[in-house]
Amino acid sequence: MVKQARAAVTRQALISAAAEVFGADGYAMATLPVISGRAGVSSGALHFHFPNKDALAAAVEDAAAESALALTEESALTAEGGRLPGLVAAVGRLMDAVTDDPVVRAGFRLGGDPSRKSEAKLHDWWYEWVRDALVQARADGELAEDVSAEDAAVVIVAATLGLETLGAVDRYWRSAERLVQLWSFALPRLSPAE
Amino acid sequence: MVKQARAAVTRQALISAAAEVFGADGYAMATLPVISGRAGVSSGALHFHFPNKDALAAAVEDAAAESALALTEESALTAEGGRLPGLVAAVGRLMDAVTDDPVVRAGFRLGGDPSRKSEAKLHDWWYEWVRDALVQARADGELAEDVSAEDAAVVIVAATLGLETLGAVDRYWRSAERLVQLWSFALPRLSPAE
Repeated sequence: MVKQARAAVTRQALISAAAEVFGADGYAMATLPVISGRAGVSSGALHFHFPNKDALAAAVEDAAAESALALTEESALTAEGGRLPGLVAAVGRLMDAVTDDPVVRAGFRLGGDPSRKSEAKLHDWWYEWVRDALVQARADGELAEDVSAEDAAVVIVAATLGLETLGAVDRYWRSAERLVQLWSFALPRLSPAE
Repeated sequence: MVKQARAAVTRQALISAAAEVFGADGYAMATLPVISGRAGVSSGALHFHFPNKDALAAAVEDAAAESALALTEESALTAEGGRLPGLVAAVGRLMDAVTDDPVVRAGFRLGGDPSRKSEAKLHDWWYEWVRDALVQARADGELAEDVSAEDAAVVIVAATLGLETLGAVDRYWRSAERLVQLWSFALPRLSPAE
């Protein structure tokens, strides 16, 4: 039991260290010795949990997806005022997590890293989550009739990932002010006429 | 004179080769020997034109900016119907260039590559170009009164760069269909009431 708990702690430390190294160096330049060194575990312990760099990247993406799902669902459920305020709250929480949580940030970055040559799991999940939220808004009469939920989801997902890309170099693009500008533009288009 | 012309050809070949290598390997992994090899020039010739990798990346960004400016200006000037159709045409041409022209694609990618640790020149230029186009639309009475040109520019720039990021892994995000979805959402918000 103690052994299992220790294994889980080691695994978690490796995922956190990998997220930080992928974030700092990019997937292609990241090396397993740097990751095990940062996690404070031996190279053998790393290989016990993850056979190679790709398996470690997949574990980072899974952990990021779990966090992202938990915080967007919680935001959507606790926001007052309906589906659209729930969507606004979820986008805000996710953008905060991208800024503050190295695992979530690495999960999104790995999906857009062509050197990884894998599926963009987190991007696909994010598009489906936003589209489902808008489809639910439509069902509840909270989406303007002349707006397609799919079109709106494409714009919101592309714009949020674009803010993340721009924010990687100039942090102002990840600021609350930029999100306010996104919603000042989009919400009047999404909301049903009074 | 022949010598000058040959130098210009060599310089251009190095910029094209560098754009392809940066695009394939990322800035951090790209090496000068691979770039000079692909350009078919000696390492000495490369160093005659560019002292280091950063200078070569800056030259790729400058060439990309020049192409991007020429094609957006031309689209805006030749589009019929006013400022908004000009903006739609310019965005379409730019997204085509990102797909088809390795130099333009590398220019945008280098700006968003944190391993480069430089300014995102092309991103900044693109934001200013879109914002200026919308400010001109406002001056000509072609922008809805309740829309901020700055807010709309943030959304269009973030969404187009987001489509590029998403398209690097799943090419459908760079398709004409996705751009149609962007404009189906955005144009009714941008256009003045009849």
